[in-house]
Amino acid sequence: MSDLGLTLYVDAHFSSPYAMSVFVALKEKQLPFELKTVDLHAGDNRADDYAHTSLTQRVPTLVHGNFALSESSAITEYLDETFEGVALYPRDPQKRARARQVQAWLRSDLMPIREERPTSTLFYAPSQTPLSEKAMAAAKKLAFAAEGWLQDRQYLCGEWSLADVDLALMLNRLALNGDPIPKVLAYYAQQQWQRPSVQEWIKMQRPALA
Amino acid sequence: MSDLGLTLYVDAHFSSPYAMSVFVALKEKQLPFELKTVDLHAGDNRADDYAHTSLTQRVPTLVHGNFALSESSAITEYLDETFEGVALYPRDPQKRARARQVQAWLRSDLMPIREERPTSTLFYAPSQTPLSEKAMAAAKKLAFAAEGWLQDRQYLCGEWSLADVDLALMLNRLALNGDPIPKVLAYYAQQQWQRPSVQEWIKMQRPALA
Ligand SMILES: [Ca+2]
Ligand SMILES: [Ca+2]
Ligand SMILES: [Ca+2]
Ligand SMILES: [Ca+2]
Repeated sequence: MSDLGLTLYVDAHFSSPYAMSVFVALKEKQLPFELKTVDLHAGDNRADDYAHTSLTQRVPTLVHGNFALSESSAITEYLDETFEGVALYPRDPQKRARARQVQAWLRSDLMPIREERPTSTLFYAPSQTPLSEKAMAAAKKLAFAAEGWLQDRQYLCGEWSLADVDLALMLNRLALNGDPIPKVLAYYAQQQWQRPSVQEWIKMQRPALA
Repeated sequence: MSDLGLTLYVDAHFSSPYAMSVFVALKEKQLPFELKTVDLHAGDNRADDYAHTSLTQRVPTLVHGNFALSESSAITEYLDETFEGVALYPRDPQKRARARQVQAWLRSDLMPIREERPTSTLFYAPSQTPLSEKAMAAAKKLAFAAEGWLQDRQYLCGEWSLADVDLALMLNRLALNGDPIPKVLAYYAQQQWQRPSVQEWIKMQRPALA
């Protein structure tokens, strides 16, 4: 495929779950892009250059021609609407709505899990500390919702969508750290984790953690 | 208009900014709906009945027939795709992407502002305490992004979208509490605040705060 003029900015440690989501989206759609890194630990997201590209100073940011867009779910919807290839979101309005709900929920709730099981425990080394009571409560809430949506199906929306990868990452914060999680959810997360697009992100060469 | 079978669940204090966003969306599209309240202070969102409607136990939740959907931005996109009426999101893919970005950003960043200027300071009584340094930094970041997006225009995306109301609410957490904010942004927020759909939410009869 010819040059589409796509550049994706991700964190230099390849650890942002939202950067991963966009990376996976681009790989699933087989879109060529240039990958650039921003060192969040060094505060490079607040540097003038990047702050003028992403006004919110966040990663990921996609640049398409001279259009710069941050927030992963906005980016992946834009990719899905703009380019051919594998659908990232279902066409059916109710299924698409469910995929959007799950993405929005994973980005705004379950904070104790995100804090106690940061993605460094997935991409560098597992956690050595048990979950707090608050995180255990959040894990129960996560399992309740995920089981309710999945029932006995393979995918959240009856067909694969990017929300499956996002949900799998949240579930793997628990499963890959040996925290309690229903077997059916651990299996679901493992299946998503094996997608080539996801494996490519997992296998990125990462700099040492400071 | 005939009964569309729409029920909206909001918090009993009419203070959730996300409940407000969906309420405004329904009013802008002139869709009839039944409004039901959930007392979050009493934990009614965790009660069996509601937890089985919204698996994530959050407000707002829209029920359409037997489809239940939470997360405000997923709900308002669903409304826009499913029903006629005023467009809540721009049709142009890049403008629509920007509206989505802003909604996602307001829901996942700027935490110090959300904590120190909760919506009770908008709908009950203003805050009496000054902003912390962290919140001042977040306010600067908010102003930088908002000015960058708006330039000298009246709307974020060149035409009105629901993201304007969401952004106005965030700006008003500062403006209506007398915190420093560029005049052009205070004016923008004030204009959005005067929309009849927004005024209807503001003027809701609220129970006393416990
Ligand atoms: Ca650039
Ligand atoms: Ca952003
Ligand atoms: Ca119901
Ligand atoms: Ca939800």
